[in-house]
Amino acid sequence: MNREFKQELASRAKEIEDYLESCLQFEGVPGELQQAMEYSLMAGGKRVRPVLCLAWGEMTGACTKDILPFASGLEMIHTYSLVHDDLPAMDNDDLRRGKPTSHKKFGEALAILAGDGLLTQAFAMMLKTSFPAENVLAAAGTVAQAAGPAGMVGGQCIDMRATGRESMELVDLKGMHAMKTGALLRAACCSGAILAGSDPENGRDTLNAYNYGSNIGLAFQIVDDILDVTGDEKSLGKPVGSDESVNKSTYPRFLGLEKSRELAQTAADEAKTCLRDYQGQGRDFLYRLAQYIVDRAS
Amino acid sequence: MNREFKQELASRAKEIEDYLESCLQFEGVPGELQQAMEYSLMAGGKRVRPVLCLAWGEMTGACTKDILPFASGLEMIHTYSLVHDDLPAMDNDDLRRGKPTSHKKFGEALAILAGDGLLTQAFAMMLKTSFPAENVLAAAGTVAQAAGPAGMVGGQCIDMRATGRESMELVDLKGMHAMKTGALLRAACCSGAILAGSDPENGRDTLNAYNYGSNIGLAFQIVDDILDVTGDEKSLGKPVGSDESVNKSTYPRFLGLEKSRELAQTAADEAKTCLRDYQGQGRDFLYRLAQYIVDRAS
Repeated sequence: MNREFKQELASRAKEIEDYLESCLQFEGVPGELQQAMEYSLMAGGKRVRPVLCLAWGEMTGACTKDILPFASGLEMIHTYSLVHDDLPAMDNDDLRRGKPTSHKKFGEALAILAGDGLLTQAFAMMLKTSFPAENVLAAAGTVAQAAGPAGMVGGQCIDMRATGRESMELVDLKGMHAMKTGALLRAACCSGAILAGSDPENGRDTLNAYNYGSNIGLAFQIVDDILDVTGDEKSLGKPVGSDESVNKSTYPRFLGLEKSRELAQTAADEAKTCLRDYQGQGRDFLYRLAQYIVDRAS
Repeated sequence: MNREFKQELASRAKEIEDYLESCLQFEGVPGELQQAMEYSLMAGGKRVRPVLCLAWGEMTGACTKDILPFASGLEMIHTYSLVHDDLPAMDNDDLRRGKPTSHKKFGEALAILAGDGLLTQAFAMMLKTSFPAENVLAAAGTVAQAAGPAGMVGGQCIDMRATGRESMELVDLKGMHAMKTGALLRAACCSGAILAGSDPENGRDTLNAYNYGSNIGLAFQIVDDILDVTGDEKSLGKPVGSDESVNKSTYPRFLGLEKSRELAQTAADEAKTCLRDYQGQGRDFLYRLAQYIVDRAS
């Protein structure tokens, strides 16, 4: 089952990548900026955020082909955040997915600009999605909130403040991750449902998507922390034990490995219960995705 | 007349600042991030972009009060671009409007994040504007295009590449500025007209706004270059002659001071002709703004 699921995940990711490639030739963009944006955007990755958006849209009644521009915007936002997080003034990382980070390859100035360009272009893409204007507006607004100072950017800020200080409580660690990685994963799910017509505040599908996204976000982060201790450097594409070496607050540090694994499984199970009202291929995929996040080795 | 106009400009800017202050308390934002965003956003400035958006909206039939959230988003985008442009890896400036730049005051990491936060929050603000969803979508899309890799970000990239090399031709200098500063000024005007209901592609008001914005953008940049040679350090809030010292391509270098002044006046006159179909207070303000841009001393 795991192999079959991985194939489906890869084929869904491929759909996103093909679309990203087709729309990457932005007219009037300076060559080196284009190159730097493309380098990071096409550097692989599981494309989890756009895949989530498409699957939630599919499951709640939207035509997935029409969601592609919006979903691609989500991947651009995720990519920009990686490029800026890697900068010398931030996490100062040399490698990302086994390749030199943007600033190592293109220099700091261009890495900053590539990130800014990806973030701005993401909104240009999302706003061009062919759905009723109200739906697009609400979905893009949800993403902007999630990616902004009270979401992803704020989470990175708290993470920066905490690194090396060992002062974070478990509840703060959870809160930080809910902002840094959880918010955009959640918004990816919700925006799919909102595009399909669910009310952005109180729609049943939006609420289910919100809870599903929160729980897989939590599971994802716990497993990330576990893999940093137990993982294999080659399949991770980054050094093992890097959290430990910078004295970073992680789930295994607070709870130990076994309890961390239990917590991740509980979150995945919670996510699955959010799918009980649905059926079809999209639902089956999302169900297995929740488990895959716990079982993955990289 | 000039003094009277400056008072009107200041009172329009004040309306924006009051609104910005009222909406700056974002819920759930880490304190230091909030502080860094606020520091740059409330550091003064003429608020030209939001003022342009409001005046074009007013002149073409929109209720200006309703445009405030959108107009504030434009100022956030402008502010983010200043914060990132000042970074050590970019222009490496220590002072902005006579105060320490964001990275000097808060450190590089927080300056990068404050910029990212302002850019993302800008879209959250713009997308919440209470106008018909189609209008908001088209107006925000216009701004995203203008601020992105084929606009402002791309212009900064070309500017970085050129600084110190003295290799730029006059036509490239014009093109660079049309992207770096012109695009957002243009989008500020167009978005006001689009919010008021003008067709984003072919609407008469949109086209007039586009041409007006292009021309005042050109005039603005030429006068900026002139003031760098002839200006008064105190009223500029930055060192005079800084372009010369880094061997930067400027209008006075290409054309001399007198021809540069002539070109700025021609552009301002062109801008004024874009207003011939309109009347009322908004029109008068925009007319005098075009001239003020040429006559200003800072």
